[in-house]
Order: sequence, then C-alpha cells, then structure tokens
Amino acid sequence: MHMIDLISKKRDGFPLTQQEIQYIIHNYTQGLIPDYQMSAFLMAVYFQKMTNEEATYLALAMRDSGDVIDLSSIPGIKVDKHSTGGVGDKVTLILGPLLASLGAKFAKMSGRGLGHTGGTIDKLESIPGYQVERSVEDFIAQVNEIGIAVVGQSGDVAPADKKLYALRDVTATVDVIPLIASSIMSKKLASGADAIVLDVKVGHGAFMKTEEEAVKLAELMVSIGRLAGKKMTAILTGMDEPLGHKIGNALEVYEAIETLQGRGPKDLVEVTVTIGSHLMLDSNLAISLDDAKQKLYQALNDGSAYKKFLELAKAQGGDINALKDPEALLAKKRIAILSDKEGYITDINALDIGKAAMRLGAGRETKEDQVLLDVGVDLHVKIGHYIKKGDTLATLYVRDKGIEEASNLIKHAIVIGKEHKDIPLIKRTIK
Amino acid sequence: MHMIDLISKKRDGFPLTQQEIQYIIHNYTQGLIPDYQMSAFLMAVYFQKMTNEEATYLALAMRDSGDVIDLSSIPGIKVDKHSTGGVGDKVTLILGPLLASLGAKFAKMSGRGLGHTGGTIDKLESIPGYQVERSVEDFIAQVNEIGIAVVGQSGDVAPADKKLYALRDVTATVDVIPLIASSIMSKKLASGADAIVLDVKVGHGAFMKTEEEAVKLAELMVSIGRLAGKKMTAILTGMDEPLGHKIGNALEVYEAIETLQGRGPKDLVEVTVTIGSHLMLDSNLAISLDDAKQKLYQALNDGSAYKKFLELAKAQGGDINALKDPEALLAKKRIAILSDKEGYITDINALDIGKAAMRLGAGRETKEDQVLLDVGVDLHVKIGHYIKKGDTLATLYVRDKGIEEASNLIKHAIVIGKEHKDIPLIKRTIK
Repeated sequence: MHMIDLISKKRDGFPLTQQEIQYIIHNYTQGLIPDYQMSAFLMAVYFQKMTNEEATYLALAMRDSGDVIDLSSIPGIKVDKHSTGGVGDKVTLILGPLLASLGAKFAKMSGRGLGHTGGTIDKLESIPGYQVERSVEDFIAQVNEIGIAVVGQSGDVAPADKKLYALRDVTATVDVIPLIASSIMSKKLASGADAIVLDVKVGHGAFMKTEEEAVKLAELMVSIGRLAGKKMTAILTGMDEPLGHKIGNALEVYEAIETLQGRGPKDLVEVTVTIGSHLMLDSNLAISLDDAKQKLYQALNDGSAYKKFLELAKAQGGDINALKDPEALLAKKRIAILSDKEGYITDINALDIGKAAMRLGAGRETKEDQVLLDVGVDLHVKIGHYIKKGDTLATLYVRDKGIEEASNLIKHAIVIGKEHKDIPLIKRTIK
Repeated sequence: MHMIDLISKKRDGFPLTQQEIQYIIHNYTQGLIPDYQMSAFLMAVYFQKMTNEEATYLALAMRDSGDVIDLSSIPGIKVDKHSTGGVGDKVTLILGPLLASLGAKFAKMSGRGLGHTGGTIDKLESIPGYQVERSVEDFIAQVNEIGIAVVGQSGDVAPADKKLYALRDVTATVDVIPLIASSIMSKKLASGADAIVLDVKVGHGAFMKTEEEAVKLAELMVSIGRLAGKKMTAILTGMDEPLGHKIGNALEVYEAIETLQGRGPKDLVEVTVTIGSHLMLDSNLAISLDDAKQKLYQALNDGSAYKKFLELAKAQGGDINALKDPEALLAKKRIAILSDKEGYITDINALDIGKAAMRLGAGRETKEDQVLLDVGVDLHVKIGHYIKKGDTLATLYVRDKGIEEASNLIKHAIVIGKEHKDIPLIKRTIK
C-alpha cells in the first residue's frame, strides 16, 4: 500500500477500506507518512467527503492509536455526554451529579477550554482544592463508590487525533464534517462509556453555524457511535445566545450550584434535563422520557442532586465549605454594563460574549495561557426580555485586564430591537 | 498575508491575486511556507482549478524564482519550441538546424530524458565529442555566429518549479492542467525566446490522454505566453504511435540525419515542418504558412538544413566525421521481432515502445540512471501498414539488459487487426 495511491483514490472520489484508513492513521502517527501527504489527503477529503463507514473506520483507527479506558470493572451502564462547545455551557457540572444521584454511573474525563468556550476541568478547579488529576484506578474506584468522577484527560488518548487536528488547523481543513465527527468520536469511543449523548450546538456562537450542518454532524456521530456498539443520542441545541446567564469559571460553578438547588435558569435546566432523560432511559433507570424527566426535576428540587455534587467535590479534594458561599469565589471588582435604549433583546451574540470573558482572563487564547478563575460575565438579560434605558445588561467580574475590550464586545453583542423574539432551544433530537 | 487564508480562499473557489500568488511562491521557495501547507493548497487547486490569469501569475512567479536568460544581445527574433514529451520525438534535432539554415535564431536550452520519453541533450551526446555544457556567453556567441545552439539547461532556472514539482509528484497533484501549464511556461518564459511553438502530444503515449484535456492545456499555455508578451502557437499532435521509426539516442540522431537529408519519415517531417512554419512566420522569414512550408521543404531537400546540422555539431565539439556513418554509432547486437500474424497494424502503444527502449537502457527510470546511447528500437511498421506473418515488426538494438522485457513489451504494443486505420497526426492548431 502506498500513501500516494490512497490520496489519488480519495481525490477521485472512491471510498477507502478500513484497512486503508488504518494504514494511513497508523503510519501517520508513527511519522512514516509525512505531513505534506497527509494534508493533501485531508484537502481531498474536504472536497470528496467520507462515507459514514469511512468516518467510523477513521474514528476507530484514531481511538486505537492510544489508550482506551476500560470501565468494565464498574458494573452497569456507564454514561457520558459531549458538547461541541458553547458559551456558558456548564451542563456537565449539573448533569453528572444529577444523574449519579439517581443511580447512573457518570465516569467523565473532561478537557480544558480553548478559545471562546470554557472547559469543565477549568471550571471545577475554581472549587478550592478540587483535584482534576486522578489515576485511572482511583477514577474507577470513585465511580464505584459514589457513582461519579469528573477528572482531566489521563493517559494518551487518541494521539493520532491530536496530530491530525494540529495539521488540519494550519491547512484549512478543520471545517470538514466527517473529520470533525471522527475527531470527537475517536475520543468518546476511547472513554469507555456505554451510552453517550452528544449536545451539538448550532448558531453564531457555535462551530456549526447552520442547522443543516449541525444535523449532518450529529447524524454522522450517532452513526459512528452506533457502528462502534454504543447507545447514542444527539440533540441539537441553539447557541444563538449563551446558555444560562453566567460565563467564566467560578461564575459557572455558581450557576451550576443554583441549578442543582432547583433555582437554575430555564434554558440551562431544559438542556440538562433533556440530555439526562436520554441517559436515564439508556441506563434503564426510567421507563420513558417523561418518567425520566420527572425524576430529574425531582432530584433538582429535593436537594439530592446538590448533595451528590458536594459528594463529588469532597471526593476529589474540594473544600465544600467554600461552596456554601460561592459568591465569595468571584472577583470583587465589578462593572455594570447599562443599556442606552429601550426595547426587546433580539440577539445576544454568544461568540462575542465568549470572547469578552476570554479577554477578561476566563479563557485561553493559546494553550499556554493561564486562566483566571474568578472573572467573567453575568448576563442579566436573555433574548425576548424587555429592558429600559439604564437597565443593567450585564455585570463584568474583572481583575485588571481586558475590561475595555470586554465592555465593547458585550455592548455590541446585545442587540435591542422592537420585536419580541422567541427562539427554540432544543431544535432536534437524533436517536 | 497568511498562507492559511490563501489556502481557504482557493479552497472556497476564489481566484488569487498576483500579489497573493507571488507571496506563496516566494515564501515557499524560501522555505517559509512548509510543504504541508503547500500540498493542501495544491490539492485545493486540483479541485478549484485556476483562472488563466492565476496560472499566468504562477508561471511568472516561478520564472522569477531563478535565473532568466537574457538573449537581447542576439539581434532579431529568437525562436523556441517545446514538446510535452513523446516517444521517438527527435523534432528539435531537425527543426533547429532547419530553421537556422533559413535565417532564424534558434537558441535552445534542452533537458535530459526521464521515464519513457527521451531528452534532446541525451540524444545529442550520442554524437561523439558533442558538448552540451556551455556558458551563457558562449551560448549567445554561438547563436550570433551560426544561428543555432542547443545546450543543456544552465544556471538555476525556475527553482520554485523544481521544488513544487517534487511535492506534486508525491501528493497526487501532478494531473492539474493549470499547474502543468505554469510549470512548463515558467521554464519557457525563463529561456528568453520571443516566439514559441508548443507541441502538445495527445494519445496513450502522452501525458494528455484525451484531445479535450490537451486542448485545455494548449490554450492555457498559449494564453500564459501571450500575457507574458510572447508570440505563441500550440499544435496538438497525435502520440497514438511513436513519431518516426526510431527510438533511442543514437537511433534518433540517425533518423534526424536522414530527415535533414530529405529522407525522413512522413509523420516526423510533417510535425517538424508544421512547427517550423509558425516560427518562420513569427520570425518574419516567410509571408505565409504555405510560403514557409515551401522554404522548409526546400532546405531539407537541398542539403542546407543538413549542412547547418554539421555546423552545429562542429561548433559544439562534435566529431562530424562520425556522422558520415551514423550506423556505426548503433549497438552491434540486434534482435528482430517478427510478426506471428497477417493484417493491418491498427495500434502501436507508444508508451510501451518507450518503456521497451528504456528497459534496454536508452532511458532513465530514475534521475541517477546512466543512459546507454547506442541501444533502442527501430520500428519497421506504422499504423495502417499491411504485414504478413514472419515480417519484421521491429529491430532491437541491444547490449545485455532488458532484452526479454523489451521484446515482450513490443510484441504487446503492436496490434494487428483486419481494418485499415488512418489517424490524423496534426489534430489542432491553437494560435
């Protein structure tokens, strides 16, 4: 087999076999296929796409390039969720304890944030003492004990994907649905879960700008997961505005705690419960989606979800006394952004809000950046709200950097108009 | 300017500006753009093509990456021809002296052969003593003195093209008409000629397999040359069978001498005179194509073309006594390939004939190979000939290598059938 022939084959629109895709990924990871052949191949994929089978072979080959977590020593069905990246998306912080409080097994390895979207691991680190590094053995033991662990990625998961992603990033081959799907699924398939819900964000704050693209991506990921033997669901959720109100690490933990205590914002609760309901069903912990939802709402309202959250924090070394007053975790310096007109909020550009939080220090522009845990944005408004001149649109929690830039970004991001607008949040479910 | 943005722009189907193409070529040649970005760009060009303007900018940028020969110290119009590579194509050996004998200025830098097609420089070296290396000063002085010089490439012509070609070769981006056209034209535009005829070969022995592709390539090269201020003509000639009868270095010199003495095979004479007629007109040495052709035939028949050939050989150190008996330059060991049936010759696969000659040692499989000057193939038949069982189809001039393989290739290459076939040789003229 020669890489040049495989490039030609793909270039000419023929699907590759599993053996051919394995050859490419194996040899590329080993450094036996040079970057310049791989990038020509990737651009050919950009134009000729991949079949669902090819994307599955690619995901499996990338999964097999590194460590695959074996969760078989945890009895029962292990659940996982993945979001394609949104602004203010703190669903994992709520969903994990919520599901575990109802008996599900939530064994999650999570990532750090990059760019305008935050990462679960950074958010958890805003809980004083919380340890994100755990050995696989401790990780498994904790799930067996309390039903949940949320840790950083350990081991060498899908190194082929890392190498390929870095190349795609500099060769204009990022926006290719089969490559995005294979990349995400290679890591999900390595994580050892039996049932996975994918939260595919769509809208101007998301990677997928149109519903059509998002559906394609979601369907392909569901297909890949199913071909690999997983229980799969994907939901398409709007990222036309940030999820919830708070953006920034400790701010999101704050909002998660509120939500776990039954006082969460409507959109955040809706997404969390929707994802949770599918995983409850997949875990045989409910007899229908309605039954699952009822149980989930109850766990949020009766304090059991929050109790599980405290158990999680404690198990991973977190100072749970600090959580009693999460307000104290936030930056003391605050700046109010006021409205200079009256009307309905018609748009809140999530991308710009995410960037504003990043400029304040809540996110990383490059992998090497340190994040500030206590800064961020608290949006007082959502699309459809009616506001008057002088009303507070947002509060910035700041230290000393990015204040002017963040203020400008937020002022431009929040659009005020004459018409009341109502945007559906859960746009589609793909099972 | 960033390469990633230019890759995206091309990927998305937008034409690049001259400045952008200059940026790419300049920085790639300098090693500031890595191969992996260039190969992604090339694959994007494969799918999105280039406009005539872009291809021209590319040719000019690659021309300007190295030495550009200045022939302005030679008075009058300097002519050049280029063939896209055929089997048995010894036109330059005949055309140069022929045109020079009629007053044209033929200042030609030529290449060596690679693969199944031979190179003019290798062929000339089969004349004992002939020196292909000349300084640019000597090259120009010789053209001023006798109207002709045929030397090897000197200086660093279009290094960007060399680097790019090597990358295309390993990334399945060779077969891209704008890249082929720019590559050829970057070198032609660096050669300093004022009038150029391109001989674009089409057929199974050529790079362009269909007339449609060949026309596209020819039109694009003519457009590039014209935009760069050259007088341009392209002719499409069939490579459905080898040109003339003889393939191999000294064998082709032999056939060139025959042709220069008015005894050339019909197809070889036709191509030579057709190309020559356009260059005569472009040099203002004839008042019409018919007038030009008449003068060219006369120079072949009255010995003046051959006389100029001897002048050329002598000027470059060749032993012109050896040319009196060119038969003596050929390998002594000969093998006849006989026909095992009767009928019309319906096909002579030029590619396989070229490969047969290469296997005998007449050509290079890799750049490092040494060629044998005295071996090759003398085809006794052409398409349309009627032959009987036992007739000689070809004579192989051999040393000790590749005999069996070459014999088999030739037996399979020559197809004998029941129908008389007549294939037009000059398929199209693009002016």
